[in-house]
Amino acid sequence: MSVLVAISGRDCSKIITALAAKLPDVNISQWPDCDNLEDVEFVLAWLAPADMWAQLPNLKAVSSFGAGVDSIDLNLLPDNVVVTRIVDENLAHDMAEYVLTHILAHKLRLKDYVIKQQQRQWLPKRAYSHNHVVILGFGELGQSCAKRLLANNFTVSAFSQNPKNIPEVNCIHQASELPSLLAQADYLVCLLPLTAQTKGFINRNLLMQLPSHAVLINVARGQHVVADDLLWALDNQIIRGATLDVFAQEPLAAEHPFWHHSAVTMTPHCAALSDLETVTQQIANNVQRMKTGLKLNNQVDRTKGY
Amino acid sequence: MSVLVAISGRDCSKIITALAAKLPDVNISQWPDCDNLEDVEFVLAWLAPADMWAQLPNLKAVSSFGAGVDSIDLNLLPDNVVVTRIVDENLAHDMAEYVLTHILAHKLRLKDYVIKQQQRQWLPKRAYSHNHVVILGFGELGQSCAKRLLANNFTVSAFSQNPKNIPEVNCIHQASELPSLLAQADYLVCLLPLTAQTKGFINRNLLMQLPSHAVLINVARGQHVVADDLLWALDNQIIRGATLDVFAQEPLAAEHPFWHHSAVTMTPHCAALSDLETVTQQIANNVQRMKTGLKLNNQVDRTKGY
Repeated sequence: MSVLVAISGRDCSKIITALAAKLPDVNISQWPDCDNLEDVEFVLAWLAPADMWAQLPNLKAVSSFGAGVDSIDLNLLPDNVVVTRIVDENLAHDMAEYVLTHILAHKLRLKDYVIKQQQRQWLPKRAYSHNHVVILGFGELGQSCAKRLLANNFTVSAFSQNPKNIPEVNCIHQASELPSLLAQADYLVCLLPLTAQTKGFINRNLLMQLPSHAVLINVARGQHVVADDLLWALDNQIIRGATLDVFAQEPLAAEHPFWHHSAVTMTPHCAALSDLETVTQQIANNVQRMKTGLKLNNQVDRTKGY
Repeated sequence: MSVLVAISGRDCSKIITALAAKLPDVNISQWPDCDNLEDVEFVLAWLAPADMWAQLPNLKAVSSFGAGVDSIDLNLLPDNVVVTRIVDENLAHDMAEYVLTHILAHKLRLKDYVIKQQQRQWLPKRAYSHNHVVILGFGELGQSCAKRLLANNFTVSAFSQNPKNIPEVNCIHQASELPSLLAQADYLVCLLPLTAQTKGFINRNLLMQLPSHAVLINVARGQHVVADDLLWALDNQIIRGATLDVFAQEPLAAEHPFWHHSAVTMTPHCAALSDLETVTQQIANNVQRMKTGLKLNNQVDRTKGY
């Protein structure tokens, strides 16, 4: 049996070195430099080429190289293949800190003051008093954010596909309840999984339901947001601003209007950066579990896609 | 008996209207438009003219218009005059939120990303892991900050003139212990009262004791910081950055180098803005207490100056 690393768009040498150190008895290769495709039972994947999967006749498990599995086309995998993802407590901590920091930054007008400083303008303004945060998607990351926001006196509501029951959080899961919640959102945090149902979820229709002082924080995937609809909403004061960490194309093209939009705060997909040690340890653990016939950790429900 | 409002540099009409509504039986006038100076027993003061005090033969109490009394020259007041200040829970909350927000903003490199966005640079960097905050001055405001920082997983130490004992905070009050504490400070928050002893406290000698990644947050008074020493420290990478909300002269002069210094984050004395309703209610309460012979609230120790 062997492990294949199929990650596009980054140098994988550190990943392979770390995995090899943890799995000394396992053959690890990197797509497309793989001698014996029949031996491959486990793939570590991120945006792997579509034509690769059919060349792996003995594939048993695929691990995403992140918290989401949207980089893997699940339709290309045989039904018996188990799909897992990374669940990293540090990611949840970092995500919560990012969301809290950017909400506070909007509340205290930090970006306005950076601009005013550049223009040598002395213009004190009271911080906003808004404190209701609505989180879309309420898995590990969303719940970690909620906890941190509650500890900082925010009121937190959450919308998820499945019913959740978290103390002090107003949890809803019926789409019919969403409009009245959106109408009361001061900050809208997107932490949805990316699936066929959630692609383009943040569109003109949704944005129009928010109060005009609302701020969007997207830390999930760029494809959740219809970029033209968001630009329209910002240009027409439908909402006040947006903090975007993720984009449909990354790095964002130099000519994209987000870069120079005064109501957009951009960061380069850095809200929660995986720690190589944690990620490779989780993958190594799952490879060992597969070898010994144990159920793999952090399995994804393939019908739901998360 | 009458109340005199002697506040320089701002329109006092709203203050006087609010006070008059709360004290319908009291004559309230504004310096210098005061008919009967012998009647004045209570003064609400902020940067009042030095020659005013000797003209008030029956003065009994002076209230500062802020949390500090450094705007009042205590040496000009007869010994029997009671001096009070504003103690506002909202101020403490806002101050804690400001300090937390600006520390998180440094930790997550928010200003760097604003600049990178302006330059269309996609350059993800991990957040800093620093988490030790040292607070200089540990009264109501400092303790409110400590509580909020502890709730956000920061390690907090505090230095104050008098011994303090707050759970989970490493409290010191001996100047001899300060150097070893400064050497371990990731963030240094200045919340000292402004007295003859603390003026220029943050100078070249102190800054040199900080690690080179340290960030100064000054939310007390501009006079605590020797501006040229801070500029020297920033220019020579003695420390990494500074967030300044207060300045020796406010508004800061347009030609001051702080405005355009890349390592300085400036805000226009807005960390904690007094709420007119709260402030005037506290002053009205003290006027009523004086009329009925009760001890005034929030008295300052005139020998200490805070």
